[in-house]
Amino acid sequence: PGAVETKCTTDNGKPLRCWKDEEEVYFPSSYLKKRFDMTGKLGKDGSTFELFTSYAKMRTPDKNYDPLGPFGHFSTYSVETRDRVRCISAKTYVPMSTQWDPIPYYYPIQIAQYGLQHYSRMKIDSVSNKSEEVLVGVQSKEWKGAAGMHETTERLFFNDEEKGKVVNISAGHALSNAGAYVYLDKSPDLHVISFEWKPYDANSSFTVLAKMKQDDLLVLINYVFSEGDGKCVWQDEEKSFDDETIVLKPRKDGQVSYSYSYSGSAPIGNWSTVTRDILVDVARALSSGENRKKDDNVVLHPGDLRLVSLGFRGQLTVRQQIAQRKEQDFHAFRSSADWLVENQDKKGGWSVPVERSIADRKLVLPPGWHSAMAQGHGISVLTRAYNHFQDKKYMSAAVNALDLFKTNSSEGGVRAEFFGNVWYEEYPTTPGSFVLNGFLYSLIGLYDLSKLDVSGINDDKIKTKVLEALEMYSGGIRSLKQLLPLYDTGSGTIYDLRHVALGTAPNLARWDYHAVHVYLLKWIAGLEKDEFLNKTAERWIGYAYGKRAKHN
Amino acid sequence: PGAVETKCTTDNGKPLRCWKDEEEVYFPSSYLKKRFDMTGKLGKDGSTFELFTSYAKMRTPDKNYDPLGPFGHFSTYSVETRDRVRCISAKTYVPMSTQWDPIPYYYPIQIAQYGLQHYSRMKIDSVSNKSEEVLVGVQSKEWKGAAGMHETTERLFFNDEEKGKVVNISAGHALSNAGAYVYLDKSPDLHVISFEWKPYDANSSFTVLAKMKQDDLLVLINYVFSEGDGKCVWQDEEKSFDDETIVLKPRKDGQVSYSYSYSGSAPIGNWSTVTRDILVDVARALSSGENRKKDDNVVLHPGDLRLVSLGFRGQLTVRQQIAQRKEQDFHAFRSSADWLVENQDKKGGWSVPVERSIADRKLVLPPGWHSAMAQGHGISVLTRAYNHFQDKKYMSAAVNALDLFKTNSSEGGVRAEFFGNVWYEEYPTTPGSFVLNGFLYSLIGLYDLSKLDVSGINDDKIKTKVLEALEMYSGGIRSLKQLLPLYDTGSGTIYDLRHVALGTAPNLARWDYHAVHVYLLKWIAGLEKDEFLNKTAERWIGYAYGKRAKHN
Ligand SMILES: [Ca+2]
Ligand SMILES: [Ca+2]
Repeated sequence: PGAVETKCTTDNGKPLRCWKDEEEVYFPSSYLKKRFDMTGKLGKDGSTFELFTSYAKMRTPDKNYDPLGPFGHFSTYSVETRDRVRCISAKTYVPMSTQWDPIPYYYPIQIAQYGLQHYSRMKIDSVSNKSEEVLVGVQSKEWKGAAGMHETTERLFFNDEEKGKVVNISAGHALSNAGAYVYLDKSPDLHVISFEWKPYDANSSFTVLAKMKQDDLLVLINYVFSEGDGKCVWQDEEKSFDDETIVLKPRKDGQVSYSYSYSGSAPIGNWSTVTRDILVDVARALSSGENRKKDDNVVLHPGDLRLVSLGFRGQLTVRQQIAQRKEQDFHAFRSSADWLVENQDKKGGWSVPVERSIADRKLVLPPGWHSAMAQGHGISVLTRAYNHFQDKKYMSAAVNALDLFKTNSSEGGVRAEFFGNVWYEEYPTTPGSFVLNGFLYSLIGLYDLSKLDVSGINDDKIKTKVLEALEMYSGGIRSLKQLLPLYDTGSGTIYDLRHVALGTAPNLARWDYHAVHVYLLKWIAGLEKDEFLNKTAERWIGYAYGKRAKHN
Repeated sequence: PGAVETKCTTDNGKPLRCWKDEEEVYFPSSYLKKRFDMTGKLGKDGSTFELFTSYAKMRTPDKNYDPLGPFGHFSTYSVETRDRVRCISAKTYVPMSTQWDPIPYYYPIQIAQYGLQHYSRMKIDSVSNKSEEVLVGVQSKEWKGAAGMHETTERLFFNDEEKGKVVNISAGHALSNAGAYVYLDKSPDLHVISFEWKPYDANSSFTVLAKMKQDDLLVLINYVFSEGDGKCVWQDEEKSFDDETIVLKPRKDGQVSYSYSYSGSAPIGNWSTVTRDILVDVARALSSGENRKKDDNVVLHPGDLRLVSLGFRGQLTVRQQIAQRKEQDFHAFRSSADWLVENQDKKGGWSVPVERSIADRKLVLPPGWHSAMAQGHGISVLTRAYNHFQDKKYMSAAVNALDLFKTNSSEGGVRAEFFGNVWYEEYPTTPGSFVLNGFLYSLIGLYDLSKLDVSGINDDKIKTKVLEALEMYSGGIRSLKQLLPLYDTGSGTIYDLRHVALGTAPNLARWDYHAVHVYLLKWIAGLEKDEFLNKTAERWIGYAYGKRAKHN
């Protein structure tokens, strides 16, 4: 007995092709996907068709959270490959965003997440894996001159009191000049380079040459003392005047060239350490096209390229030892923490320099707004940095970050109230938006600070602030327990409570945000050992598998 | 090209039978029904299969609401056929409920709805339709004696100063005695009888004999001065002692007999008017089995039976004129209003004499609780009764009903707050339950009172109270505008906000309650000429047709 084609209609009266057998009528899976946002895919063995309510996997954290340990599952994050991350700045070593503005800007939440990601990896990866390091350029013969070039390249090897063996280089500063260079280790895993140098003027630069595995394309990544119109990374133009127009020839001779702005990274004439993940820098460079779309984002994985050489131009001194590594977790973590210390404003905040508008511009935050999520994440980075480096500057910055939690949104702070319940706003709009995930992250930050061991500290201000963090955390937890049910639709969750003040439809959380809600709720339920929070999280997991609340 | 059977799985991994054609995979409609509570049915011409999100139709009220006109769409209500209505009491002429207790009790909301239903019908039906009336028993020869019975039946005809022509009857009081009777008009539409009588003792009774069209079953409905163990209506037992056990013989000779408690309907020895809808009384009688289920509820429609005779027993006087009508709207409306006046307690409330528990007994109201919905509905009946009868007792009762709106739930009133927003509770539980539809009905009641024309009234208390009703209404509207978005799931609505305090899943509204939400919201949006309320109602209508709020 087979099936016969039959005509179906749904609410809107639109006919659908259906099939009918002796038992019932069958509806097209495309209808289910469109109507209920479900996901269908062929089963593993290809013989079955699987239908899923949620495309996102529901993860839960390990039971026991250590406020100085890995931060949630951030070790699996990859901030540097996000399409909205324009580059890892060569000046500050932290990511710059182009999410809400085409000119790259510092987004404190992203910077903190970058730090937490690398800290978590540091804590999770085994020591043996980390310590793998290859040194190149140690022997003087490894340093090559740019033979046959129209400008002379000089290399002078001697001992510096501080730095040991160093190379003094003098070479033409044009990017077309290969300068003095060292061939790098070919192992595709060793895509991070690190060295110390002292450039003498703003014409100095260095360049890494990498080769793509897929198509042998040679990619030149130049680090130059130029602001580059604020572009962070840009493609170098090779102008020709054929046909009386300027023609850009990006891939001449199977080679492309990009530049990162190194301007301001350190004072000229001083020693500084350079650490770059070339895999990341190449990917960001290749993604830097002018009118690129989300799909144009290039993500590279270890093995996709290998380093060829590192070359220097202009007047400079380099330590005669180039390190090549697999990762730069420690450096990224410290760069994030240092950025937070150095960029904290008078209010103790990390303001966002671009406008943020939500709800069809019904809620607009002008440039300079603060976010409770940035404050919380910032604290989570800084408490860890304090513990790791035992440098009080990190702790001072962490406690200073608390003040904005006491200031109302309307006065530039991040504090709001939902019908009398305190809330810490990821987006401190007026009226409030009450984004759940940002609030929960801010609570984790407050928790981290409240757990800081201050027994050995002789500073009453710090001790008071740590207690204040505990109070703010507890107040937030009380609100969470009051308001959490308002985010529950009975079959999913709501991203925020903007709809209450705006009188609009609820802003439903898509499944990956639902997964974030579940993860964070489980995290906090674990901190609080709270059965209500835990049960709610369990119910929310059920929603992702098609369970729904009962109707009356 | 046909379809081939294929195996599908869903979230839970359970396999389903699916069909697959060259384009895609087709899922069983039973899955859609179970998973998403959808409704499937064959199209009108039988060739298509229609899938509906909501089984309930979304109705909206007429634009201009008159606080003295029909109440919403209540003219289409049929309180008396609801399975939870045990009977229309022969004592008070208002419904008695068995919803939450097997012993019939007065449920003020139901009584008020009964009144509003019949008032609305009065207002909507054309006058010609209403005035149809047939008089029987006007001629003395129409009054028959129970020939051949073992007890004598006497009929004496004479003129009473007040009542005109009357019949004095003396007959044996046993129910087995047919007494003195009149044959009624055979027209199946004329199922309401009305007459005046004066019984002299508690042995007097009257009986209507009706014949079912379907199976010629004869149904005797007796109205007796007996409390009947509080049963309201019960089947008369015909005991036989065969086999030494008492055997109930309900349908001996194609005939069944039921009794209504007429006890206390009026003082014995006084004239009173009897009005009964026999169609309703027979249906309630046939539904009165001891262990009946919902499905056992008998609903009769005009044409399902015809009246045969009306007989009297015991010592009594009857006016020699029995009216037969199609409906009794006026009588039902007045009975409801009078019940409300006579049963208002010292607090101005109509308390519910049975326990009410919700949320798995997490919220329990002990007997004697008040409901804002009862207070509101009561007011809506009483303002109309005042206008209709111009009797101040109705207005006094209406304004007295306001007081409980000022008293908190915890103190026996109906007032609650949701995070500081005033609410009028259908179920004044602690913590609050915040049922939406009951709140909206209570607002309509307050509105009705606030619109009462008091220009010609010389009573400052009344005038003050009418202003107070306006304030309460306005306060409620403010809360509504604040809290309405909390009932919106993005694909349907939530019945109440119990989940917020209880920390449970939201109590989703089934589609018929969703339709009530839509209707009431449109109603109030119309009163308020409010675009937010109207837009919300429109969006909620969309949900019933499968539209959903966007996710982020
Ligand atoms: Ca967020
Ligand atoms: Ca209700």
